[in-house]
Parts: sequence; structure tokens; C-alpha cells
Amino acid sequence: MSDHDVFLADCPARSTLNLIADTWSVVVVFGLGGGPRRYSDLRDRIGGISNKMLTQTLRKLERNGLVERRDLATAPAGVEYRLTELGRSLLGPVTVLARWAEDHAEELAGEDGA
Amino acid sequence: MSDHDVFLADCPARSTLNLIADTWSVVVVFGLGGGPRRYSDLRDRIGGISNKMLTQTLRKLERNGLVERRDLATAPAGVEYRLTELGRSLLGPVTVLARWAEDHAEELAGEDGA
Repeated sequence: MSDHDVFLADCPARSTLNLIADTWSVVVVFGLGGGPRRYSDLRDRIGGISNKMLTQTLRKLERNGLVERRDLATAPAGVEYRLTELGRSLLGPVTVLARWAEDHAEELAGEDGA
Repeated sequence: MSDHDVFLADCPARSTLNLIADTWSVVVVFGLGGGPRRYSDLRDRIGGISNKMLTQTLRKLERNGLVERRDLATAPAGVEYRLTELGRSLLGPVTVLARWAEDHAEELAGEDGA
């Protein structure tokens, strides 16, 4: 068991949770679960995400060591993203949360979807 | 396997994920994992949460059937919150995510904690 505690406001666990506990981070990590993807594939796979939000989310995940980027020597040039080892360790928790949302979508009143 | 798909923008699974994939929802559900808690206990347990945010989060979770509220016939009067059966089914995924954050807090560069 870690010494860290998500209940403590100034604990690194809380700032870590802040980094990963949002829809776009969950969906991007989940979307890279099957292996590396080109930026354009990822954007097409994730409905409703803007280029700006996808770029912002990928940069945040990259900055924090969860995702790595690779420039492809293809014509036309391309960029590929993949989960790092740390990112792959997050795939389990993210998958469990995403599957819960899929399995229980009907049960939530979801009046606000806020 | 559900027919729902968090990758689809207009799928109920995506709006469900929007409801639960945020730090305060994760920490409040996690905080109720040990059983019912008075509002004041919950607020004291969750560092850094304002009364407004705790009330807002509890109402959202209550509106969507994840939490239920009970007025206590005590002096002074009090309010108690507990997870519903649906809420308890979310406890597993939330705990896994919170524990991941606690276990990996040191590894994330966390430059921004954004």
C-alpha cells in the first residue's frame, strides 16, 4: 500500500488523479490500448473530440510519461502515439471504468449528463 | 459485452463517463466506500473540497442514482449519504483508479498537475 492518499488535497496522489480522472484522458488511454495509433486514426476513433482537445490531452499524457510520440518517416509524414509502460499500467483501471460506463449507461438517470 | 461504446460522442456510455470521470466524483464515491457518512464527515475527509463542490457532486450523484441521502432525526439535525446498489457497483472501478494514482504518484512527472 502506498503512503499517498487521494483524500489529501496536497498529496501527489490527488494531483495524479487530477491528471487522469477526466473523460478525454480515459478515452485516449483506452483508445491506445490496442497498440500505437496515428494521430488521425485516434481522432477518428474518438467521436466528438476536437483537434485542440486531442492535442492538449496527448501533450498532457506525454508530459507526464503516460504516452510517447513518434514521427513517422512516411509520405505524407505522420505522427504516431503509443502508451508507455506507465501508460499501459493505467490501461487496466481505465478499461474497468470505461466498461462500467458502457454496462451501466442505461441505469443512470443521466438527466443532466453534466 | 454492452452495445454501448464510450468512443461514440452521442452514446449514453459517453455521458455516463462524463458523470463519473472527474476527481470529485471519484473521491466522493471512494469516500463513501466504507459505509454511510454524514455530510460534515465527508467534507472533513476530503481535503480541499469546498462545501459548494461537495454539495454539487453529491446532488449530481444522487440525481443519477449512485448516492442516496437520508435526513437524520438527531439533535442537531444531520444529513447522511450512502452509496446505492448502483453506486456500490462503481466502487470497484473507482478504487482501482484511486489506488493507481496513489501507487504511481511518484512516477508521474506531474509538472503541471493540470
